[in-house]
Amino acid sequence: MPPIPIDNEGDPRLAAYTSIREKDLTSGHGARFIIEGKVTLETAVRRGRFALESIFIADSRIEPLAELLARVPADVPVYTAPQSVMDKVTGFPMHRGVLACGLKGEIPDPAAFLESGVSAASTLLLLSDLSNHDNIGACFRNAAAFGASAVLMDAQCCDPLYRKAIRVSSGSTLWLPYAQGGTGLDMVNAAKAAGYEVWAMTPRTDAASLTSLPVPARLAILLGAEGPGLPDEVIAACRAVRIPMSEGFDSVNVATAGAITLSHVFTAAV
Amino acid sequence: MPPIPIDNEGDPRLAAYTSIREKDLTSGHGARFIIEGKVTLETAVRRGRFALESIFIADSRIEPLAELLARVPADVPVYTAPQSVMDKVTGFPMHRGVLACGLKGEIPDPAAFLESGVSAASTLLLLSDLSNHDNIGACFRNAAAFGASAVLMDAQCCDPLYRKAIRVSSGSTLWLPYAQGGTGLDMVNAAKAAGYEVWAMTPRTDAASLTSLPVPARLAILLGAEGPGLPDEVIAACRAVRIPMSEGFDSVNVATAGAITLSHVFTAAV
Repeated sequence: MPPIPIDNEGDPRLAAYTSIREKDLTSGHGARFIIEGKVTLETAVRRGRFALESIFIADSRIEPLAELLARVPADVPVYTAPQSVMDKVTGFPMHRGVLACGLKGEIPDPAAFLESGVSAASTLLLLSDLSNHDNIGACFRNAAAFGASAVLMDAQCCDPLYRKAIRVSSGSTLWLPYAQGGTGLDMVNAAKAAGYEVWAMTPRTDAASLTSLPVPARLAILLGAEGPGLPDEVIAACRAVRIPMSEGFDSVNVATAGAITLSHVFTAAV
Repeated sequence: MPPIPIDNEGDPRLAAYTSIREKDLTSGHGARFIIEGKVTLETAVRRGRFALESIFIADSRIEPLAELLARVPADVPVYTAPQSVMDKVTGFPMHRGVLACGLKGEIPDPAAFLESGVSAASTLLLLSDLSNHDNIGACFRNAAAFGASAVLMDAQCCDPLYRKAIRVSSGSTLWLPYAQGGTGLDMVNAAKAAGYEVWAMTPRTDAASLTSLPVPARLAILLGAEGPGLPDEVIAACRAVRIPMSEGFDSVNVATAGAITLSHVFTAAV
């Protein structure tokens, strides 16, 4: 479909793109999400698992992006406008000039996801109560780097399709399968029922050392909120595992703890 | 020394604390740096390696901090003011009500640091051209967690005593020895001259796999800028080492790469 020129920032077809930053603060887990920048749009088009509702690109970017736009399904409208109109719509200088609106669709909860048979997977990353978008994004990036098959999150985790989470994840939240819903304990129980051994990562000194354990064929690595960590009753339902560290300095960032564990497991499995 | 009350935001004794955010943007590697929050001040007082020039605390925090303040050397003035005056001085709402001004003193360059004989150390973290304060802070946090003896940086790296870097480092930039100066190649050559094997971390497929290598007694782990990575001529002076990863997704965050490597080395050495 040829790009559809728009010359008025009040055009209702651009409603999804108005005041992006304010929407970030208020919309929470919405039905739509925003994709920003060429590299992320490329990821969304080439391997993303979400339908695009529309694309919105500054005039000047149409030609450089011609090859990518040719791959966009014909029923996805591509709106185009001068940079100045784009900036007015979004509410801030949109230098990159590339936006798209994705449709989240139905995100299954972890139990439904595991029951659907996608669980031939060997390594899962489980996240409980992570409310920081950088951490969620980084967890996905690390899960992708070390070949985890999916990320499962409880309802308390923030939205992996929030703009910053997508960016920090290197676009992996757009293609790596994930599920979200319920409590941390629900998620742990569902993983165990599906045959996964669940490792609750914790700095507790009575936990088993990561490097002392055989890596099971079906492993779920569970990370909790930075600061408080996982609640005791959740840890009690899992195997408690710690990363060996210097005495007197017993914690790394939560996504970093996940990366170290995923890397260890990936290497052990090679 | 009893706290010195100040009732006027124009008091020249508070000059170091005025318009903190603007100073962040302009001062670069200054002679002074700002410590924020109770936990960080505690780290600075109990184990920090930098002299404090002064402390500046909201009235209401004096009593809860009495025990900590009793440990402050007698020649360090503790200024106190109502929260409203503090907010005016700093230029933004300073909810935590706890600030201190540290003196950076002389930071040696990596070659001088290694020559000074501090190098009985077994693992060093070397950083080249890291311009992001989050990454610098996270690298220090990880170096501390996995027992690196020091962090060496080239002149291109940003300041580890910048407010955000201190915070992200969990205060470790205040006590973990570091050196900074010169080029990345100077730093590599100085480490080699001091008997360290230098591992240049890179996603290049012709690099040796991290898990295939014996860990030398004296090891320096070198990380470069995220995105471009280390320049070829620097890698050529080192042993090129890669972290095994999923095909088609060959990069994690630079501080995360450091954490994985440091953790592997820490475990191998235990």
